[in-house]
Amino acid sequence: MEIDYTNIKVIGFDADDTLWVNETYFRDAELEFSKLMAAYETANKVDQELFKRQIENLPFYGYGIKGFILSMVEIALELSNNSVSNETIGAILNIGKDMLNKPVELLDGVNEVLHTLSQDYRLIVVTKGDLLDQERKLKKSGLLDYFHHIEVVSDKQEANYSKLLNHLEIKPSEFLMIGNSLKSDILPLINIKARAIHVPFHTTWIHEQVVPNKPDNKKFETINSLVDLLPMLNKNRNDKHKR
Amino acid sequence: MEIDYTNIKVIGFDADDTLWVNETYFRDAELEFSKLMAAYETANKVDQELFKRQIENLPFYGYGIKGFILSMVEIALELSNNSVSNETIGAILNIGKDMLNKPVELLDGVNEVLHTLSQDYRLIVVTKGDLLDQERKLKKSGLLDYFHHIEVVSDKQEANYSKLLNHLEIKPSEFLMIGNSLKSDILPLINIKARAIHVPFHTTWIHEQVVPNKPDNKKFETINSLVDLLPMLNKNRNDKHKR
Repeated sequence: MEIDYTNIKVIGFDADDTLWVNETYFRDAELEFSKLMAAYETANKVDQELFKRQIENLPFYGYGIKGFILSMVEIALELSNNSVSNETIGAILNIGKDMLNKPVELLDGVNEVLHTLSQDYRLIVVTKGDLLDQERKLKKSGLLDYFHHIEVVSDKQEANYSKLLNHLEIKPSEFLMIGNSLKSDILPLINIKARAIHVPFHTTWIHEQVVPNKPDNKKFETINSLVDLLPMLNKNRNDKHKR
Repeated sequence: MEIDYTNIKVIGFDADDTLWVNETYFRDAELEFSKLMAAYETANKVDQELFKRQIENLPFYGYGIKGFILSMVEIALELSNNSVSNETIGAILNIGKDMLNKPVELLDGVNEVLHTLSQDYRLIVVTKGDLLDQERKLKKSGLLDYFHHIEVVSDKQEANYSKLLNHLEIKPSEFLMIGNSLKSDILPLINIKARAIHVPFHTTWIHEQVVPNKPDNKKFETINSLVDLLPMLNKNRNDKHKR
């Protein structure tokens, strides 16, 4: 399969787990939380209950760390049958504050890739989650100057992307999205006739997992690392020059 | 003092306590919280400690209900010296969820004013706080169709407004902001040479209160209700026609 990227003018990047580490911090936090709950339930059960509660709470709390903390507190009260200590509740709140203070750890090659692509394309960030937390990470990342626009959305469904492209006056056919989540960064774009390249992160939150698409329906490419983007788009530009 | 609004093309509206009731719900929640804490401290002291903690937590949690809930839990642990019951923690979480489920109660004349102004001006919303919660309220409000653009910002300082006007290609001299907070909706606009009209809400969060400006520095007008906007801007347009 060959996909043609020659007419791409704008490239959108997901942020968490595409530009920098994120899911790892959530996994570490879940591990700490299951240790705090060890007196009441197995780690496995704690994980399951927390995941279920996060999904149930999405309409109230949305994505992001604050909702995650609140869900942990709810589950601690419930799994302990209202007998968990105040110290444990305090420890849960601290897990959250530690997450909000984490340094921003860029993934391999991010600086190089953005630097190179920013010379030929308009780059934007499309990220979901907590507005303040995403702004904090973007500032800490040192990457802000590469981007023409930052959009923090409350969800990444087709309608969110269509609205954004419309607002920024970008034609779907000229837009390429790069991200680690098939569900949030890839499939909605394919459905609105934009393009997308999948860069899986080693860990994916269950909520972001989807059934892999069938081979005959394969309308996007998958790469191992952001640095693979450069030859793909370069090759593409060379082809264009040859024609 | 006469301020000339003839060249205004875009009107920005704050949302909470300008288009709909908000602060009242926070006050009710604080009252409930101080009742839950009555065994440990006076209502006055509980209020003070909660306020202080919210301000300290702003860099972590930002504005909005989720940070408010987390601050209440922190204060409950501290004021009780880690002896508050799990049931009380649960009750605090419920205060938060109730807030997130509150109906949207429009202030007087909002529909009429937006309907009329939308025929002559481009209207936008500039609101700070939690992205998902603000989107929820805008949807529930039934007002979305009046607005060309909705911007949820993490803070409302001069730089936030300048960036937004720049992004939307609005000249400050053609922009009028309407809001209830001198600190967030009025003074930053005056400082960037845009205009602003103050519509005080009966209740203002202490954090939004500023020392009233001196009479000789009065560069904005204050009205009692959004409906007062119509004659002001109409009168203005009539004057223009006369010249």
